[in-house]
Parts: sequence; structure tokens; C-alpha cells
Amino acid sequence: MTGRDEIESLIGLMARLPGLGPRSARRAVLHLLRKRTGLMAPLASAMATVAEQARDCPICGNISTGATCEICADPARATGEICVVEDVADLWAMERGHAFKGRYHVLGGVLSALDAIGPEELGIPRLIARIQAEEIREVILALNATVEGQTTAHYIAEAIGPAGPRITSLAQGVPIGGELDYLDDGTISAALRARRSF
Amino acid sequence: MTGRDEIESLIGLMARLPGLGPRSARRAVLHLLRKRTGLMAPLASAMATVAEQARDCPICGNISTGATCEICADPARATGEICVVEDVADLWAMERGHAFKGRYHVLGGVLSALDAIGPEELGIPRLIARIQAEEIREVILALNATVEGQTTAHYIAEAIGPAGPRITSLAQGVPIGGELDYLDDGTISAALRARRSF
Repeated sequence: MTGRDEIESLIGLMARLPGLGPRSARRAVLHLLRKRTGLMAPLASAMATVAEQARDCPICGNISTGATCEICADPARATGEICVVEDVADLWAMERGHAFKGRYHVLGGVLSALDAIGPEELGIPRLIARIQAEEIREVILALNATVEGQTTAHYIAEAIGPAGPRITSLAQGVPIGGELDYLDDGTISAALRARRSF
Repeated sequence: MTGRDEIESLIGLMARLPGLGPRSARRAVLHLLRKRTGLMAPLASAMATVAEQARDCPICGNISTGATCEICADPARATGEICVVEDVADLWAMERGHAFKGRYHVLGGVLSALDAIGPEELGIPRLIARIQAEEIREVILALNATVEGQTTAHYIAEAIGPAGPRITSLAQGVPIGGELDYLDDGTISAALRARRSF
């Protein structure tokens, strides 16, 4: 029974990816087996390269394959603005927006007494040190609009203090293309409070 | 811009898997990046092993990492029965049923004049040779219930001829757990024609 074991263990590993279950992992592996040279071998080698080289950027916490991430390494992005995000996924989402030209600080989570995640775990002292060292003029808190996200935002704002740089947060309102009928009450009332002249 | 390119190319390759699009590939890669040692490295190495070792079984056409597949290599499966399937996916599906104890013949497609796929391309002469060499008593045609699948089934039945082994095909009827209301007309009439005494 040697022949099948490697394939089964590959299916088992693929099934641990988000968005793939046992059935779709099987289908994906079958697809790979049909395209062994064209897709499977390049994918395996790309994955091995990234697994070996990827590391957390020591400055901002972004994941990258360089010594520092390409955002921290880019002198054009020393704009004096730091965008604080919870997660690398949020950083990637911000980058897809192509609107922010400064640098980031990835918390890697939110404050949580239950999970014993305090300011140290989130690198908040390191953020404060960066703000002074990099002469930051504005800190943009791009945290999720959840209770934990907003608690963390308030903590960071207090830690920076009134003597520090300007602190802003993302606007809350109706998403582009959003239909009022499908929006939750909280978003509608936030959008109404933040209304602007037309 | 070195740091991000490897990750982007990995996302591009992942997005070519069935069931994953650009967004879910990004999410999957992010998940892998978070579990670099626990999941990404083992997955990359499992994939490289399979990409290197997997080959089509020269006897039946199944994909396996051995010289012959584990079904052809298993003496207990020399039952004198051959199950003809279109595709390795169908072979796997049959194996999941745990009902068939014989060996397989994977066509790798169906007859198609448009795509210039003839009996040679599907290994039908090889199947006929196997039937004689392995003293096969029954050929089970487990082909899809499509026009092409049934055309191919008829061609194989004629190629084997009346002097050859018994030829059977899978029963058609109501799937286990199936509700009549949701079944297509063809299945219902096939199930009615093949009705059995209760």
C-alpha cells in the first residue's frame, strides 16, 4: 500500500487550507496530478521557497521574503504616516486599495484579557518607539470595527498621548456599491452621523 | 521589490487550482504564511515528493507513486473483474464506495470525433489484450451517463464481442438519499424501467 499513501497525505495537508474541505482538496490534488510538470512541480518549489525565505519584517511585522519587507525597504514610503492594522491580511487589503503611501505597523492581534494578549504582545511599545524614531506625523488606526478592535484603538491613542502625532481612523459609512436595504443598523447610523454636504 | 514577488507568484499558482480563485488563493497563502513550519513546509515537501514520484500505472492508467499502482500490485484484486472508468477521479470515486474488489482500466477520456480521440488514444486495444491475458470474466462499464460516455461504452462492448467475458454497466436509478422532486426526468424514467419487486 505504498503507492497511495503519499497522495493521501498530500490530500490531508491540502484539506487544511481555508476554503478547501476533504472533497475539494481531493479534486485539487487530482488536478495537480494531471498537471504534474506544468503546475504541481512549480507550485511545490514556489511553496518551498516561500516557506524557507518568508519571515516577519522586524520593523512592521509584515510577512515578506526579504530581510525587511518591501514596504519598509522602500525609501519613497517614508512619508511620516504609519497605518496600524490588526493583521497581515488587513495590510494586504489596504495595499490593494492603492490609497495609502506610508508604512505599516502590524499588531498581530487585538488586546484581549481572556487570551492574555496585552500591549507587549501586540508590539505597542515598539510602535511608540517607531513614532519617535521615524518622526511620524500621523497614525492611522485601521482596526476592525469590532469591540476588541476599537478597544485596542483607544488604548493605542492613549499610549501615544496628546503630545504625539495626529491620530486618525478609517471613515465609517456605506461601502461603495452597497445597498442601504442590506446594511446593518450600526453602519447606517454611523454613515448618517458622518454625513457630508453634497 | 524582491520581497513580495515570490509570494505573489505562489498566489498566482494557487489560484490555478480548481475551487480556488484569486481571493481564496490569497487567503490560503496567508494561512500558509502564518503556519510556515507547521503546514507550509510539510505541504511543499509532500507536493514535491508526489510531483516527482507520481506516474500513470502502465497496466491500468491509475495515478500512483509506485512502479505499478497499488491496485494492480495487490494480488488479492486479481478477481477476474475489470471496471472501465473514464478518469482517475472516477476510479477514486469507485474506491470510496468500497464495493468493487477487482481491477480497473482508466480510459483517460471518451471517444470524440471532434477532439480526434479514437480507441487508440483511450487504450481500448490494450484493454482487449488485458481481458485475454488476465482471464477476465466480467467487464463493468462504469462510464458517465452522458452521450459520449454511453457511445464509448457501446464501442467497448462491440470491441469485446459476444465471445468475450460478461459485460455489465452500473445500475441507473434514484441515488441514496435522493428526493424524487429534485431528480431529472431521465433518472426517474430509468429508475421506473429498472424497478424491482419490493
